Formats: sequence, structure tokens, C-alpha cells
Amino acid sequence: MAANKASIGAKTVLPVGHTQKTEDILGITVTKEGDFSSWYQEVVLKSEMIEYYTEISGFFIMRPRSMFIWGVIQKWLTEKIEDMGVQEASFPMFLSEASLKKEKDHVEGFAPELAWVTKAGEKALEVPVAVRPTSEAVMYPYYAKWIRSHRDLPFRLNQWNSVVRWEATQTTPFLRAREFLWQEGHTAHLTEDLAGEEVLHILELYAGVYEKLLAVPVVRGRKTEKEKFAGGYYTTTVEGYIPSNGRGVQGGTSHCLGQNFSKMFDIKVEDPTPKTEENPGHIYVWQNSWGLSTRVIGVMVMIHGDDKGLVLPPRVAQDQVIIIPVGIKKSTTPEEKRRHYDELHSMKTALKKTGIRANYDVREGYTPAWKFNDHELKGVPLRLEYGPKDAAKSVVSYTRRDTGEKGTIAISDLASSVGDLLETIQSDMYTKAESAFLSHRKVITHWNEVVPALDAKNVVLMPFCLAEKCEDKIKDLTSREDTAADGLAEKKAPRMGMKSLCIPFEQPGGIVKGETKCLNPECGEFAEEWCMFGRSY
Amino acid sequence: MAANKASIGAKTVLPVGHTQKTEDILGITVTKEGDFSSWYQEVVLKSEMIEYYTEISGFFIMRPRSMFIWGVIQKWLTEKIEDMGVQEASFPMFLSEASLKKEKDHVEGFAPELAWVTKAGEKALEVPVAVRPTSEAVMYPYYAKWIRSHRDLPFRLNQWNSVVRWEATQTTPFLRAREFLWQEGHTAHLTEDLAGEEVLHILELYAGVYEKLLAVPVVRGRKTEKEKFAGGYYTTTVEGYIPSNGRGVQGGTSHCLGQNFSKMFDIKVEDPTPKTEENPGHIYVWQNSWGLSTRVIGVMVMIHGDDKGLVLPPRVAQDQVIIIPVGIKKSTTPEEKRRHYDELHSMKTALKKTGIRANYDVREGYTPAWKFNDHELKGVPLRLEYGPKDAAKSVVSYTRRDTGEKGTIAISDLASSVGDLLETIQSDMYTKAESAFLSHRKVITHWNEVVPALDAKNVVLMPFCLAEKCEDKIKDLTSREDTAADGLAEKKAPRMGMKSLCIPFEQPGGIVKGETKCLNPECGEFAEEWCMFGRSY
Repeated sequence: MAANKASIGAKTVLPVGHTQKTEDILGITVTKEGDFSSWYQEVVLKSEMIEYYTEISGFFIMRPRSMFIWGVIQKWLTEKIEDMGVQEASFPMFLSEASLKKEKDHVEGFAPELAWVTKAGEKALEVPVAVRPTSEAVMYPYYAKWIRSHRDLPFRLNQWNSVVRWEATQTTPFLRAREFLWQEGHTAHLTEDLAGEEVLHILELYAGVYEKLLAVPVVRGRKTEKEKFAGGYYTTTVEGYIPSNGRGVQGGTSHCLGQNFSKMFDIKVEDPTPKTEENPGHIYVWQNSWGLSTRVIGVMVMIHGDDKGLVLPPRVAQDQVIIIPVGIKKSTTPEEKRRHYDELHSMKTALKKTGIRANYDVREGYTPAWKFNDHELKGVPLRLEYGPKDAAKSVVSYTRRDTGEKGTIAISDLASSVGDLLETIQSDMYTKAESAFLSHRKVITHWNEVVPALDAKNVVLMPFCLAEKCEDKIKDLTSREDTAADGLAEKKAPRMGMKSLCIPFEQPGGIVKGETKCLNPECGEFAEEWCMFGRSY
Repeated sequence: MAANKASIGAKTVLPVGHTQKTEDILGITVTKEGDFSSWYQEVVLKSEMIEYYTEISGFFIMRPRSMFIWGVIQKWLTEKIEDMGVQEASFPMFLSEASLKKEKDHVEGFAPELAWVTKAGEKALEVPVAVRPTSEAVMYPYYAKWIRSHRDLPFRLNQWNSVVRWEATQTTPFLRAREFLWQEGHTAHLTEDLAGEEVLHILELYAGVYEKLLAVPVVRGRKTEKEKFAGGYYTTTVEGYIPSNGRGVQGGTSHCLGQNFSKMFDIKVEDPTPKTEENPGHIYVWQNSWGLSTRVIGVMVMIHGDDKGLVLPPRVAQDQVIIIPVGIKKSTTPEEKRRHYDELHSMKTALKKTGIRANYDVREGYTPAWKFNDHELKGVPLRLEYGPKDAAKSVVSYTRRDTGEKGTIAISDLASSVGDLLETIQSDMYTKAESAFLSHRKVITHWNEVVPALDAKNVVLMPFCLAEKCEDKIKDLTSREDTAADGLAEKKAPRMGMKSLCIPFEQPGGIVKGETKCLNPECGEFAEEWCMFGRSY
């Protein structure tokens, strides 16, 4: 139990719903509703998920509590992609400018954020090298060397690493950092169809990370041309939604790169079909790349957390259950106390035997109330309390972190009841988040409803022409200064415009091609599809 | 089965011990004995462990075949250190100069090899940042923040990442690269004794990686002052030995940093014992850091490989067993062939069920001999051949990769026999390597025996005063031009001097303090301990 004292000596604050005892209690000082941004920063810091790397701005330290979650995700995803035949590799973190420049859109997309190493020791490098922002240009020269025959396809490598994108904009823990952990898969296929199948298979795995592990609902869809990966053919995405501010958040992307990179990097195989005049005898491979980052953790925190701190879905919580002794008094004899602690230990052992990550908190010098707050702050899904009164009835009292619901469990039935409760919590957390997302995804068919919908913390689905310049215009139109004559104009922050989040695979229906117009009143073109727009991270 | 065609179209070479058939056979073009350095480079390249990153010199790509081995090590070590209470964290890859400079020896040790980021996008950074060569200076400012009480101790974090040391000297795959993967553990303790216990516990785990997984014997010991970690208190090490050239190689190091860093970074806790005039009421923590890198893989290759290529110890081999169909002729009917392949598939399944990593090679268009060579090159520990003749006798023929020994196994007994054979191979490989190391560790008590011993590919144990300047002198004395009047002087390369490898924990005995002299004839001081010296990587 290391690193549990960051709070000692810090400001004394009374968390919601608890009466202050004699000890200092440290909680979150703002409400989620009242100041979401400060709330988020406090939660990730005080729950010991994150530390700000004050040495260099825009960087964060992931502490054991968040690394554990990343580890669960890593294990789950590794198993799935291994089954697909994906193998692990490790490429250098540096990129030569020559390789980077091979794909024009790619370099333009990433150049503004590249970190350049220009010096080693005291000596200037003859040719500066960039830290990878993503590894297409690092890896593909070697794909050209390794892939010689259609029998080498599909060719699939993955790496778990960190990448650097020196963002000029404001950084936010997990969501936007100058360095972040992720996995990046890079694969090559013989045909567009085979590549496309994999793109969707991976997207479904990413959706699984959110839905099955993090209890976070997502919408699956395709990015618009404006928002797709720099240099790619098309991008698919899972998009999340933050109820507190109504913003959309890109969850993870699976790109089909088409043959753009294979042509530039000369990755080709002989054509297995007979050579003819039209068939030059070789095929440039179809490539995909796909990545999921530690951003997922930030989305989870934003969605589930509350005014007491973190709320963790059981499947990713390091401690799923915390057992806390109560009712120990000054009059309790050492022998009674020892017996009581032995019982706690047996419970912990019984739970662990069935695969439940149970822990107990027998730290001396802290009251039960202090411990309750501490584990609530850190998001432990289920608290068990056990005292002489419980012992007399052969039960344990429990409190759910997600709902605050209390009850008792017969000791005789502990492991199976706790297992069931954890599954219920996981499922209830998902259902709650899903209902919030569902009720805030508004199908809009009148332009004048757009901004009010955004202001009411919705994302919107609207008929859209898919054109890039129309998308720029839409952002512009929705970010105009508010002209409402409410006399409070000077108090209003400039309104954030909306961006396209994705073209959902599940379309509401009702667009008639060549008839339904793009909703942007200044556009005039016909709508192609329903597109999900929103203010976003 | 991706990435298996690097050989196609390449130079045709006849591997030792095989008659060439109609197909092209690609093997290692030099012998291990004849040209060890080229042999090594060919083996790691052609076995698809490594690719040279030609974009930037001194960097290498780890391909799936080596990443698998690293994965096995990672899993094994993670389990052990988790049991100790070590937790995972992830710190940024960049280091500020201010933090780096806090420990004087530390910065001096690493400054010449630091890669400096001076520019982001088109903009020069106000303060350049270095890529971490190791993370003491990245992590310890936060240790000062997080460690507040003796109750927070021991405090133990680990990270698996890559570090950059921009070496000016020649790089070698795995052994010396400008970027390499490793784990770095950083811990804090209340007392010197507690820190010291952990140092040795970790060292024993590192020895376990070599001895139990990689079948590589190591000598455990302490580094001399000259060779210890820059800024540390003392360094313990496991040292390996490469029989082919008689060089020592540092295998992994576990450092006690003492209070050097805690004083500089102000990492202290209140003293749990009562405050007195002599006791200021706080204690600077005792720190350790310990790291094991992908170097381990290179050592394993050098020790076990042979003229046919890689030889992998079963415990780390991705394919432990390869099953190859033989005796398939042009006259074999498709039905017979299908039945034969079904039997191979059943064998594979039976082996996999018992946890053996078995694969079969039913690639079309390759002869059995080509496949034999291919899997020998890649080091698969055990080859099973199965043809009509074997089928008639209900046996499978096997060939051990390490010894070439052949035999048959009853199909009825396949899984348990193969399991036993793999254990035997693992153990025989270790025994062979250990006997080579044992017979080349010479206890030397006359200075004039030193250079001949080195020339006979030994490392030497000799009485040593432990002084840093004496060590410099010893290197100097042993690297002098050879003065032997053999008339071949012009052909000789300048002789490599010897360095101290470690002060082995197991001392030969016989040094009398204040009597036995340091073996360096120009020293004149008394010997403190037996020190292992050698030419080294």
C-alpha cells in the first residue's frame, strides 16, 4: 500500500454526504455540475491516477492506479488481436525527415507537432530526427522489404509504446497530452475488402474496450473527409459523449490507408492472378492502421465520476472490493480486535479465491469515516463494512460506490453475492451512461434547433452534404457570438462551434438522395448522410 | 505466418550439414568460429529477430521473433516483482536539465549521450529537453512529493519503456543500441539494510531470467567504484560470458543509490524513532534502482547459436516444436495427403493442449529440406518429422536443434515425451554453457599469466586493490601492443584491454588482508578482494 499519503497535510475539505469527524478529510472541492473542468482535474489528481509533470508543461505521469486500468485494457486487447494473428514488434522512436515526407498529407498533418532532436551530447546532429507522432513512416520502409509475396499477407504488426505530439493547445490529463501511451497496429492486405473487414473488426474491439470494460457507450461510424487520418483513405471511429458538458469525444480510430502509403513506400506483391496487359503483375498492398490510447481512461473518469471522486467500473478497478473494520472502540480488547481482523482476512481470502480483487484497510490511526472517504475518492466499486453488530448477525454490510445503495450480505454467501453485485454495478453503470447518451443524441431537421440543442448539452444528428468546406462553415456558424438580447452578453464566453464527430453506421433514415438538403442553411447542396455533430474534445 | 519471406530472392548458400536440393537454401554464410562478429549479425538478421533501422544509424527494429522472447521475460519478471509489491507507472520520456543536474556524478555520467529536443514544429523550445537515458531525474522530484511518511515505505515503482543513449561507439544489435527496451525499477526504503535486501533479491531475479529462461549462466557480484552506476552508492551485477571470443558481458544491474539522490531531491520522511538532539527528526530515504534490458536476448544468441543459426532455449521459443510432413511424393494422392495433414494437425492440437507451443509447416512449394533449414535458422528447439514410414510404425521422428540428436517417439506417448525432451534440451543447454563459463574463469595469481589467459578466451579472477586508478592502469597494461617477436606484428589488431567485470560474491578465498598484494605489478597496494576481469562488451 504505497503512495497513499498524498493527501496528508493538504487542505481540509468536507466531502458531500459525510459529517466531519475529528480527523482531516480531503475530498473534491468543487462539484461536477458546478465546475466540470476543475472537478476533472481534481479527481484525476486526488484519486492518484495522474500527477502533473511540472518540469515540462503538457506532460503527465500515470500513477499505478491508472496504469492498472491500462494494463487490464492491454491484456484484453492483446488476447483479441493475437487471435487475429497480429504480432508484437518494436520500432525506434525516431523518424527521419526523408521517410516522413513520402506521404504529403501525412507530413502536413503532423509537422506542426513534431519534436525535433537536433543535438546529441554536445554535438549537433548532421540530420535532425523527429520523435514519432505515429509510426507509419517509421515502419513502412521495412514493410516494403519484408512483404515480398501475397503469401506474406495479411501482414500484421502491433506495438505498445508512447508517441509525442507537441500540441500548442491546452492539454488535459488523458484526453490531450504531449506524450501519450497507446497501441498502434499496422497491417497489410491483398485487397480493399480484406483490409476493410479488418478495419471494422478492430473498431468493434475498440467499442468492446469502452462498452465491456469501461462501461462507456460509444457510437460507431466513419469520419468525414475533413476529420479523417492525415494521408489515409478512410477512418472509422468510436465516439463517446460527456453528459456533464454535452461534448463529444473521439474514442479510438481504425483507419484504412488504402494504397496511399504502399505506393509511396513501394510495398507491393506479385499479383496472384495471371498477368495480362491491364494487369502489370503486381499489386500495391492495402493498408490499415489503428490505435487506442490512454484517452479511454479520461473518458471513463468524466462519465462515471461524481462529487465524491472517481467511480470505477468493477472490471477495471484494481481494488474491486474494500473491506473496512467498523465498531472497534477504545474498550475493544486487543484479543477481540485480533479476532475481528482475522475474520476480515478470511473474507478477503475467500473473495480472492474466486478471482475477486479484494483488499482490506486495517491502517491504524484512521477512522472508518476517513477510510470510507478515501476509498470513495479512489472509486472502489464496493465497500464492505464489518463490525460487532454485523458479526452478531453473520452478515457484512455493503455500500455501492455507483449508487450509494446499502444492504447486507450473509457471510455464508459472501463470494457469490459479491460477484453478482459487481456484475450488477458494471451493468448498471453502462445502462446509466447509455441512457444519458441516447437521450442527448438529437435528430435535428431544422437549422435553428441546432444551437439550442448544443446548449442543452446534446450532440446532434443532421442531414449533411459531407463537403469539407461546408463543415468549416458549420463550425463557423455555430461558434458565432450569441446575439440573444438578454443583457448578459458581456458575461458570455465565446461559444464553441461544433465539429463533425462521425457519420454513424446506424443511420436514422429518411434522407432522400437528390431531394433532402444539407441542413446548413448557407450550403444548398443535397444531403448525403446523417452526420453526428457536436462540441467536442 | 507473416514475415517469412525475407530470404526469397536472396543469395543462395548451402548451410552446413545439408545437401542442396533443387530449391534455393539460405543460411548463415560465415562460421561462428571463423568470424564471430559477422556470424552474430547474420544470425540476428536472418533469423528475423532484428532489422537494421537504416534510416538512422545505431537503431534497430525488434521483430516478432525477438519481441516474443522479451514478452516471456516481461511476464515472468512482472509476476515476481508484483509479488514484492512493485507497481507499474509511466513517466514522461523527457527530462529537464534542471532535474538532471541535481546529482553531479549522474549528470556527468549521462550528459555525453543525451539526445536533446530543441524544436517543436517550427518553433525553438525555450528550454531544450533531453530524452531520458534512465529515469532517476525524471521520477525523483515526484518521490519527494509522494513519500511523506515512513508508512509510505517501501515505495516501489517500475516501468517498462525505452531509453535513449546516443552512443558514439559502435552499436551491436541487442548489446549496444542508441535506443533500447528495458524495465527500470525505482524504490525507496527506510534503512540501508532494507534497501540492500531488495538489491540482492532483484539481482537474483535477473540471474533467474538468464539461468532459468535463457539457459545462460551468470556470475553474481558487485561492480567496482569505477564501474558502478553514475551517482549511485554501490552496484550489483550479473555477468555473462561469451565463449566464442572470451568476452565478459554485463547482464543486468541492481543499484543501491544510498541517500545520494534523496538528499539532492529532498526525499525524506519523519523518523519513526523519538526525536533527540542528534536525531533531527527526519530521514532521507534509501533508494534503489534496477534495470534489465533487451541485451539479455543478444547474450543468449551469442552463447547458444551455431553455424546453422539461432538455437533457442525451449522456455523462450515462440515455436517450441515444429512438425514437418515428409515423404509426400508426386504419386501421393490428394486424399492420402489430406489424411496425412489431418494427422499432423491432430499432433499439433495434442501438443498445444498440454501447453506446448507447437506449430506445423505445411507451406506448399517448399521441400522438407528447405523447411528444415528454415526452422533451424530460426532456432526452433525440436523438429518432428512425420511421413508414411513413421506412420507405419506409429512413431514420429525428432531432431534436437541443440545437439542434432535424432530419435523416434511413439505417437501414443507424444505429448509427455515431447514435454520431457524440451525440459532436457533446456537443461542441457544450460549445462553446456555453464561448463564453458566454468572452464574459462581462471584464478590467476601471477601477472604474466593474465594476457595469455585472456588470449585463450578466459576471464580472470585476480587479487585486486579495488582502486579506480589501478583499474585504469590495468586496462592500459593489458591493451599494450603485443611485443611478441613472431614476425606477424603487422597483422595484429591492437589488443583490447581488460576491464573489471565484478567482484564476485563467491570469492575463491586465499587473500590475506594486509599481506596479499594487488596483482597489478605497478600497483604495490594490498589486495582487498578477488575481482573478475576480462575483455568485455
